[in-house]
Amino acid sequence: MTLEGKSLIGQQTVSGKAGKIRGIDPATGEPLEPAYAGAGQAEVELACELAWAAFDSYRETALEARAAFLETIASEIEATGESLIQRAMAETGLPQARIEGERGRTCGQLRLFASVVRAGEWLDVRIDPALPERQPMPRVDLRQRHIALGPVAVFGASNFPLAFSVAGGDTASALAAGCPVVVKAHSAHPGTSEQVGRAVQAAVAKCQLPEGVFSLLFGAGNEIGQALVSDARIKAVGFTGSRRGGTALMTTARMRPEPIPVYAEMSSINPVFLLPRALEARGQALAEGFVGSLNMGAGQFCTNPGLVVGVKGPHLDTFVEAAGKAVAASAAQVMLTPGIHSAYENGIGALSAHARVREVARGQVGETPNRCQSGLFVTSATDFLAEPVLQEEVFGSTSLVIECTDSDEMHRVAERLEGQLTVTLQLDDGDIEAARALLPTLERRAGRVLVNGWPTGVEVCHAMVHGGPFPATSDSRTTSVGSAAIQRFLRPVCYQNLPQGLLPEALRDDNPLGISRLMDGKRDA
Amino acid sequence: MTLEGKSLIGQQTVSGKAGKIRGIDPATGEPLEPAYAGAGQAEVELACELAWAAFDSYRETALEARAAFLETIASEIEATGESLIQRAMAETGLPQARIEGERGRTCGQLRLFASVVRAGEWLDVRIDPALPERQPMPRVDLRQRHIALGPVAVFGASNFPLAFSVAGGDTASALAAGCPVVVKAHSAHPGTSEQVGRAVQAAVAKCQLPEGVFSLLFGAGNEIGQALVSDARIKAVGFTGSRRGGTALMTTARMRPEPIPVYAEMSSINPVFLLPRALEARGQALAEGFVGSLNMGAGQFCTNPGLVVGVKGPHLDTFVEAAGKAVAASAAQVMLTPGIHSAYENGIGALSAHARVREVARGQVGETPNRCQSGLFVTSATDFLAEPVLQEEVFGSTSLVIECTDSDEMHRVAERLEGQLTVTLQLDDGDIEAARALLPTLERRAGRVLVNGWPTGVEVCHAMVHGGPFPATSDSRTTSVGSAAIQRFLRPVCYQNLPQGLLPEALRDDNPLGISRLMDGKRDA
Repeated sequence: MTLEGKSLIGQQTVSGKAGKIRGIDPATGEPLEPAYAGAGQAEVELACELAWAAFDSYRETALEARAAFLETIASEIEATGESLIQRAMAETGLPQARIEGERGRTCGQLRLFASVVRAGEWLDVRIDPALPERQPMPRVDLRQRHIALGPVAVFGASNFPLAFSVAGGDTASALAAGCPVVVKAHSAHPGTSEQVGRAVQAAVAKCQLPEGVFSLLFGAGNEIGQALVSDARIKAVGFTGSRRGGTALMTTARMRPEPIPVYAEMSSINPVFLLPRALEARGQALAEGFVGSLNMGAGQFCTNPGLVVGVKGPHLDTFVEAAGKAVAASAAQVMLTPGIHSAYENGIGALSAHARVREVARGQVGETPNRCQSGLFVTSATDFLAEPVLQEEVFGSTSLVIECTDSDEMHRVAERLEGQLTVTLQLDDGDIEAARALLPTLERRAGRVLVNGWPTGVEVCHAMVHGGPFPATSDSRTTSVGSAAIQRFLRPVCYQNLPQGLLPEALRDDNPLGISRLMDGKRDA
Repeated sequence: MTLEGKSLIGQQTVSGKAGKIRGIDPATGEPLEPAYAGAGQAEVELACELAWAAFDSYRETALEARAAFLETIASEIEATGESLIQRAMAETGLPQARIEGERGRTCGQLRLFASVVRAGEWLDVRIDPALPERQPMPRVDLRQRHIALGPVAVFGASNFPLAFSVAGGDTASALAAGCPVVVKAHSAHPGTSEQVGRAVQAAVAKCQLPEGVFSLLFGAGNEIGQALVSDARIKAVGFTGSRRGGTALMTTARMRPEPIPVYAEMSSINPVFLLPRALEARGQALAEGFVGSLNMGAGQFCTNPGLVVGVKGPHLDTFVEAAGKAVAASAAQVMLTPGIHSAYENGIGALSAHARVREVARGQVGETPNRCQSGLFVTSATDFLAEPVLQEEVFGSTSLVIECTDSDEMHRVAERLEGQLTVTLQLDDGDIEAARALLPTLERRAGRVLVNGWPTGVEVCHAMVHGGPFPATSDSRTTSVGSAAIQRFLRPVCYQNLPQGLLPEALRDDNPLGISRLMDGKRDA
């Protein structure tokens, strides 16, 4: 595919007048062609105008038509073929198998949302029929469904150039909810973004939807993102990235005349608790599993295990020693961008220099630019509890082991954790009661609790929660992965005493959509 | 019941050291005994400490135990008998039938939430079983349920001393969700608050729940409320009141180190659209129904019809004339507090003085203190669209009629409305197509759309939405009335690969709670 280096606004290709952006091959540090013309206020204005014009029509598309649209996006992405894979590899330094797997995940996610749209659970239909004879007062007919919030601004993430980017989970769930989407492309992978954007643009045309259902804007710096979130026609925001970036968008969104929800997935260190019997029985194997998870994708996952908690003693020593050896042997992988690499170097430098932290091992040094040298560090629970800075995420393959004196101290560490996407328990049969005692704390601190697995790898399914208390996300009531992500972009509306002919299809007596409904509080499906 | 004039913290009765508060009989302006000792930082601290201590235990109460607790609160409120009714009448100026009806509504609401707790839909259980054979990667076992957010701060409203106060909808739904509640009593009805608070306190003891499940604090001014919302152990806020009060709490909540959700129900003028055929056929009857709704409770409802929109002409003139006559004949009812009365006088004075507004009628003048003199005003759509101040809520029995030149202008008025709790359509068969054209705009602007009714009167049921876009509420994704209100105080947690013995009951294979679950995306009930 020939890349044009321009924003996609509705069915148009628009060249902005703001600063140019270029992708960079992080493996070499070389810039990639073409340069992307940055969009400005005029392009934000046009994209929002088209999105608003599309909204009332798009949000009432038939379930089947909307599902088919999501499936068409998936097919169009697949049709970009090798061109997309090669460009994504060049822009991210990620290997082919990973990018291919991520494409599969992205298209699978679009198809999952197509099935979610068809099933209609997201409409949360509730019908309380009139009770004209009720005493002391009759009840009128009341029916509830959910409708789309409005156009959504989506910010692509750098670390998943497909699955959390232009047609990733935020876009798929917003489109599934009936919201037009305006994407601000991540500047780290503009060519990948353009190709996926063209696939969505083609799907809009094929499905004969209003063009404003989707736009893709390129732009350096924060200005275009701020302009987008400030626009009165944008009614919600999806974001995956840094805590600083996410909280800046939260501030902008709440300073608007009409505040809007921001779904920012920001930072998490994903603690792993090694319970005593498991640690005793399989410290070596745990170390191997842990370092495998730590090194995956150069540690550039939201769910990377950045903290390990265990009770001090010979079994924890065995684990640390084995993990240290594995870290020392770790090859230096290319990181996503020079900026991420330099932030990693700063973060790990601060850990190394910290007076209360001991360096256990560092991985191999890279010979070429932007390589991630893994790291493993140890500190005591006392120091961890005294130093909030040790909870800050270092984005990359590094982790900190916390030595506790006993299970009470382990509990205190758990209680003091900031909000997390995940917490993991490694346990054996003899640890069940200890786990039971920890669970109430852990589920208060995280969106997902795992047993005997590793936090990397987030299944896209109905039961997934990729979310958690602040600062893991801006809104712990939601998930950004899995079918429940659609609920972020919906709000309930109640219809009182409407004639059948005016009611939305979902609420009509004859249930033409054939969906599950709550009738007088009881499920009728 | 002998009133003690003290805060209720857990099972204790605590006398604060801050300024004293007294209820006032608005019908006479006379202060009522006893004086209430205002709580301060020490009482906030104690209430939050107890709430936090109760949280992990209370949120895991068996469904039946939690439901029985809600029912016990209802019985205990009923057991306060005539004492509660008389005190509420004295503190609010509301008539006996209204207070008795509101007690019925409040107890009915608690019992509705008991049934909601038992049904377990709120747990939103989703189970995606392991798929060990799946290619290219097996799927692990993933299960989701919802858990309580944490202790909730509830601010009682002045206009529903029972149904939106100490044991009102916010408290009932938060307790149903498994959240301890700390109520800041509204200073307009402290004696009513104490009696209801004692009923809840007694229910906590009878049900042998941890005492911190409920506390009730009295306090003048904003300090105690701000301290409560700032406390790290409070995880959500429920509020019904003014836009100024609600936005102040929103600001405090988002400036915390850990921002928390605020559910503030604030202001709404509840537009009524009179469509042409309905106006032609029954202008007189519409005027009577409208003024009846306008005058209900001296107009002190969140859903009071403060705006009427119609197409200028003889039929609208007939309506305005008839409504004006009814308003002129309206008796002056006692308002809730001297403060509300003086705010009403200011608001209606500004309308009267506005150069673009014509006064149609004023109701009878009160002979005693704090009486609401009803009002009806008219302006043109052009002026309404040009003057945002005309959308500001005047809390009381007054309304503004907007004369449009045609249906296009009516549509422009609809599009320009701020977020509302309700919008109403008065229509006849010949108006259906006009209504269909307006509906997409109306449902974007409001939480509830009514046909041929009046917005006052909010049914407590499963399909109700008492919510709407800002500034009607702080969060359009929710409702503060009806069973869906429970969802405000919950968040999802995913459990990955937990042994059956560690799983919460709701997620076990054998479904011991017998609740409806989403299995692999399909409902199994």
